[in-house]
Amino acid sequence: MKTIDWIALDWGTSNLRAWGIGADDRIVAEAASDQGMGRLERAGFEPALLALIDGWLPQRRRTLVIACGMVGARQGWVEAPYRQAPCAPVLSDAIATPDTEDPRLAVKVLPGIKQLDPPDVMRGEETQIAGFLTDNETFEGTLCLPGTHTKWVRIAGGEIVRFKTFMTGELFHLLATQSVLRHSLDDAALDTAEFAGTVAATAAEAHRFAERLFAIRAEGLVRGLTAATAKARLSGTLIGSELAAARDFWTDQNLVIVGNGAQAETYAAALRALGQSPRMTDASHVTLRGLTSAYHHIAGASA
Amino acid sequence: MKTIDWIALDWGTSNLRAWGIGADDRIVAEAASDQGMGRLERAGFEPALLALIDGWLPQRRRTLVIACGMVGARQGWVEAPYRQAPCAPVLSDAIATPDTEDPRLAVKVLPGIKQLDPPDVMRGEETQIAGFLTDNETFEGTLCLPGTHTKWVRIAGGEIVRFKTFMTGELFHLLATQSVLRHSLDDAALDTAEFAGTVAATAAEAHRFAERLFAIRAEGLVRGLTAATAKARLSGTLIGSELAAARDFWTDQNLVIVGNGAQAETYAAALRALGQSPRMTDASHVTLRGLTSAYHHIAGASA
Repeated sequence: MKTIDWIALDWGTSNLRAWGIGADDRIVAEAASDQGMGRLERAGFEPALLALIDGWLPQRRRTLVIACGMVGARQGWVEAPYRQAPCAPVLSDAIATPDTEDPRLAVKVLPGIKQLDPPDVMRGEETQIAGFLTDNETFEGTLCLPGTHTKWVRIAGGEIVRFKTFMTGELFHLLATQSVLRHSLDDAALDTAEFAGTVAATAAEAHRFAERLFAIRAEGLVRGLTAATAKARLSGTLIGSELAAARDFWTDQNLVIVGNGAQAETYAAALRALGQSPRMTDASHVTLRGLTSAYHHIAGASA
Repeated sequence: MKTIDWIALDWGTSNLRAWGIGADDRIVAEAASDQGMGRLERAGFEPALLALIDGWLPQRRRTLVIACGMVGARQGWVEAPYRQAPCAPVLSDAIATPDTEDPRLAVKVLPGIKQLDPPDVMRGEETQIAGFLTDNETFEGTLCLPGTHTKWVRIAGGEIVRFKTFMTGELFHLLATQSVLRHSLDDAALDTAEFAGTVAATAAEAHRFAERLFAIRAEGLVRGLTAATAKARLSGTLIGSELAAARDFWTDQNLVIVGNGAQAETYAAALRALGQSPRMTDASHVTLRGLTSAYHHIAGASA
């Protein structure tokens, strides 16, 4: 294996991803596990990390490990106190160092960002935003970062000006798997035309949101409704409601979705249904860019 | 024990309640269990019923057992096909008879009601409405029946004119116990002033609904928030969203809440926060009134 200079970690609530980085910021190794922050006690973080990267670590020196995400929450490995928006996403202070037993590890956890009014928080997305701005230094506009908790972030002058979080992804999962609506859904892909229509209708008549949920079940019982249509209705209703509340973030903005896969595509389709033309950028790429930028800052400062 | 002439059942998704009724429609015996429709296979209904009422049954004749609720759903004991609104809630046709083995049982399951446009369904509430109208024959206005799935029902000319269902109760339960918001709540009672303010704000600015959910968690992290305040925010946001969509049912209407306990009080407080003055009526009372009315109809027809 090629020499690993440092290790990048994206450590969220549900998953842990690790990259071993060699010369010229090249990826030399990659690994992932389901040992997210949500299932670990404080003493479990170091073993969960070593389970992935033990073989990557040289014996004779400490290897810098740069982590972002919920690993820095109060209930994580070590609390990395929030920085406060408006601020640059650049990761220059408030970095936290957890206690480690293995002498080969030098772990640094990057801080999240909080907003006081209205109250909001992010952990991990600030690193993606820093990575995005590394590639797009003069960007002004809105970033949408889909996820279990989707973030909308206004960027100007290289700073996070303000942001807003929606728990749409979590709500979809709960309703689709545990509510009475589960009887109407299956693993089928959603009907894209039905989805676009539902997003537009929900965003236009936001006051009718609440009635649209049970209506999915009722229409299934009274008229028959395919699982693909029911899924489009549920997803479209929830995202339409989010877009109604996030309107000032996306209306006629320079708009970029930072994401991967089906969820990012779903947000793009929803925005197109409302007449917007979002660009897309790869979430893994910007995460690693942000962690790399932080690494150079930390390694440079300690050199 | 006094003689039991017939047995009334309120058999919902989660619970089974039984009343043994004697002369002059008096309650002679009562029992309840958690053997709701949701946990029973078809073959399990008769044993679940006998477990409650076996001792009530005379040996020499069949006893009429009149049941309402989800027991009549397709996945229940026997499907009692929906009647179609607009219609009287009176239970004169489409009564279903499940197969029973015990010769002492003559079970009758009352049908629910469906609405075609917009699609909606009820099972059990039609019996409560029939009971309410027995006591209030000339009622014109709106009934609100809080529950896991709350119904709003417009009554005119002794008929169910139209109705709308909201899954607010189920949504509250899922969010309070399984989402990230569970970290902000506990068993504390909700802050009533905060609740009223949240209902009013959410109903007035329905397009902001989606952002209010994660904001509860964020405010807890950034500013601190008591569990009583967080619970008021979550409940007030969900019920405020429901009231925004049900506005044509409750605005300046003759308005009666059919319910019991904390949930009915919560709806009353929400409506008062929007300037309404709902009356309250007891749900168990009207359920039994409705079942009694059905019994007399069925017993009379077969006499």
